[in-house]
Amino acid sequence: MSRKTINVGLIGFGTVGTGVVQLLKQNEDLVRKRLGVRLAVKTIADIDIITPRSISTEGIELTDDVNDIFNDPSIDIVLELVGGLGVAKNILMDAIAHGKHVVTANKALLAVDGNEIFEAADREHINIGFEASVGGAVPVIKALRESLAGNNIKSIFGIMNGTCNYILTRMTDERLPFETVLKEAQILGFAEADPAYDVDAIDTAHKLAISLALSYGKRVNLDDIYREGIADLKQQDVEFARQLGYKIKLLAIAIQHKDMVEARIHPTMIPTDSLLSSVNGNNNAFHIVGDASGTLLFYGQGAGMMPTASAVVSDLIEIGRDIQKKIWRRVPIRGFKKDRIDDIRLLPMEEVRTNYYFRFSAVDRPGVLSVISGILSNYNISLASVIQTERKDQGAVPVVMTTHESREKDVRLALAEINGLDVVLDDTVLIRIEDKGSTT
Amino acid sequence: MSRKTINVGLIGFGTVGTGVVQLLKQNEDLVRKRLGVRLAVKTIADIDIITPRSISTEGIELTDDVNDIFNDPSIDIVLELVGGLGVAKNILMDAIAHGKHVVTANKALLAVDGNEIFEAADREHINIGFEASVGGAVPVIKALRESLAGNNIKSIFGIMNGTCNYILTRMTDERLPFETVLKEAQILGFAEADPAYDVDAIDTAHKLAISLALSYGKRVNLDDIYREGIADLKQQDVEFARQLGYKIKLLAIAIQHKDMVEARIHPTMIPTDSLLSSVNGNNNAFHIVGDASGTLLFYGQGAGMMPTASAVVSDLIEIGRDIQKKIWRRVPIRGFKKDRIDDIRLLPMEEVRTNYYFRFSAVDRPGVLSVISGILSNYNISLASVIQTERKDQGAVPVVMTTHESREKDVRLALAEINGLDVVLDDTVLIRIEDKGSTT
Repeated sequence: MSRKTINVGLIGFGTVGTGVVQLLKQNEDLVRKRLGVRLAVKTIADIDIITPRSISTEGIELTDDVNDIFNDPSIDIVLELVGGLGVAKNILMDAIAHGKHVVTANKALLAVDGNEIFEAADREHINIGFEASVGGAVPVIKALRESLAGNNIKSIFGIMNGTCNYILTRMTDERLPFETVLKEAQILGFAEADPAYDVDAIDTAHKLAISLALSYGKRVNLDDIYREGIADLKQQDVEFARQLGYKIKLLAIAIQHKDMVEARIHPTMIPTDSLLSSVNGNNNAFHIVGDASGTLLFYGQGAGMMPTASAVVSDLIEIGRDIQKKIWRRVPIRGFKKDRIDDIRLLPMEEVRTNYYFRFSAVDRPGVLSVISGILSNYNISLASVIQTERKDQGAVPVVMTTHESREKDVRLALAEINGLDVVLDDTVLIRIEDKGSTT
Repeated sequence: MSRKTINVGLIGFGTVGTGVVQLLKQNEDLVRKRLGVRLAVKTIADIDIITPRSISTEGIELTDDVNDIFNDPSIDIVLELVGGLGVAKNILMDAIAHGKHVVTANKALLAVDGNEIFEAADREHINIGFEASVGGAVPVIKALRESLAGNNIKSIFGIMNGTCNYILTRMTDERLPFETVLKEAQILGFAEADPAYDVDAIDTAHKLAISLALSYGKRVNLDDIYREGIADLKQQDVEFARQLGYKIKLLAIAIQHKDMVEARIHPTMIPTDSLLSSVNGNNNAFHIVGDASGTLLFYGQGAGMMPTASAVVSDLIEIGRDIQKKIWRRVPIRGFKKDRIDDIRLLPMEEVRTNYYFRFSAVDRPGVLSVISGILSNYNISLASVIQTERKDQGAVPVVMTTHESREKDVRLALAEINGLDVVLDDTVLIRIEDKGSTT
């Protein structure tokens, strides 16, 4: 007897959950045409199941007990949209233990506890879908895991956090300071009351960690990824970037080396005429170079109710297809066979080589420029350009320099020496530059 | 007994075939890590199998008889890279009849004979992969068929032909005439000796036809798609476009209406600050709007040896995974269940509504502008802007007008009347404009 319905148990009835219920209702016939059977949310569990949502839940069982989902043999797939770590992890592990396939959008959980969850899923022969965890509606997980399966991933340059990109776009276009834009973003609902998760690049690190696992088939330790957020970014540097032909974006960067992977997240100057620099507002984009494919760019909404629901529903349909074929795990969870997964070796940040932008707060006195450039030269840091602005009445003037490719370790040593000079009044601002075609 | 190797029989040992052999060799271990077994070309058939290629074929059987592939029970997948219609069709149909899964990059064949080939594949329970047929390395087929499976595809705006985009980019950036750029492109190998297939948008029509079938799950008649190439495009109009804030791109356009689909291909003015207008050189890009996903953009190399090989190998791995699971056709060929596929209804071109650019060759005489705009007004065509250039010593001056949204039928009737005027010395140039957010 062939199935007539694939039943989903939704746990966590927030924004994205509401979007999924709405999308499955609104496009019910379309999904049935694609899948051949009905795909429907049968039960919704939430600790607050009483408060009415913006959509009708007619025909859906509502409960505040997740066991009503786990113990229902007619439910095929558990959709975890609770978010966060502890509770969500228990839900996923319980669902897996009950033999349910699972779909989640929870990048934090996968980045932190992915290894344990993936192992449990493997052991219990269930499918786990997580397309919505990186890039929202942008199918970057499927691209890395399936479409680029024949490629060595040479590099990923990603704008992976819409909130940061929204803030940076307004800082650039409207020449506003970080604090002003953040406050407005919070009022508009584009940023959380506690913005640290976004602006300190924690969210981006979660997404980069998942992308690394899919690209290199290996486990990565989240804490080993170098991470700098955008909270300290000054309008002055946005303006100097403009003068130098750059825009500043928060980039998540992965670069394949021979036996190691370079992984880092920081505000980055990229050429104004590059594709990534045209990615504005709260959009995401993934610039991926495969050794055969060449450069690919994937762009779209990385968050939001319906874009995230789009990715979740594609996972539900995927798993529905496997259920119909009575198979599981057609594609390995990380894209690589389990017995071929090693721990990932990250290049130490100090060994990274890239171009740099420095803004020195120097006393406006003859000879200072020569002292600074002398120290840089001692550390093998060669200059690409220098901007010295007009004298001001205060004691310090900004001196801006950009470098050719230099080693992070040398840069740190040189800046420590320079910051210790009497003629340097404030810590030097450092922003890395990527303009070697990696972002075009 | 589990398989140790998935064997591929390659028919057609040209550029892409060479790329596939090279990629499978160069990334052999990577593919094995992903697939769990070896994926290898066992036999290559080509009418000219004697002439040495740029790569080693050690360990591969070479033949000029395709039956050596069809009759080899150890060959799982036939890779058709012959191209063209007749011969390629016979190869695909024979492969299917022999129970081989097939992979092809042949968009012409699929656009023309897809229905027949897909039906045979369905009947014989074999898989058919064709990711390389549209967008080269850009995984647009998988995106439309799987990642966006929960979405109604509201629109597709695609730059689907690299040769045309290369020509248009140079016409725009270097202000060169079409003929000059085409000649250089032919010398550089970016355009064929007979350029009609590219510049007359035949290739683009094939790709749009395939995209339509995947988006709307229906069969489309290739000849019903409105098609205009770039061969008649004048540098003068590229320049006027620039003045108006547009770039000209050859766009393949699909727009979902209630019970119909609008499908057309023509040179199109799009805003200079849109993402699609930043797609330069021989790149492809697909701007897709889903009702849940919102706007997505996929960008990359739409042709070339290794980018096309990347897509082919992803198909081979896909089918390899199905072979290991002993399943076939997990995803319906067009993404929709066979019994839910209807013929597609295309909106007649005359009913299309968009914005227009006109360049009139008018006698430089008082009142002419008023006569022209009067006729346009009679047909409910309202003007957005007018550029009247300075007088020249010749009799005719270009008069440029752009319109608000107008109906194609009205435009044609109005231009017929205007072209018949004594004061209009040459046929009016018409270029459609898309600037309503569809390309941003």
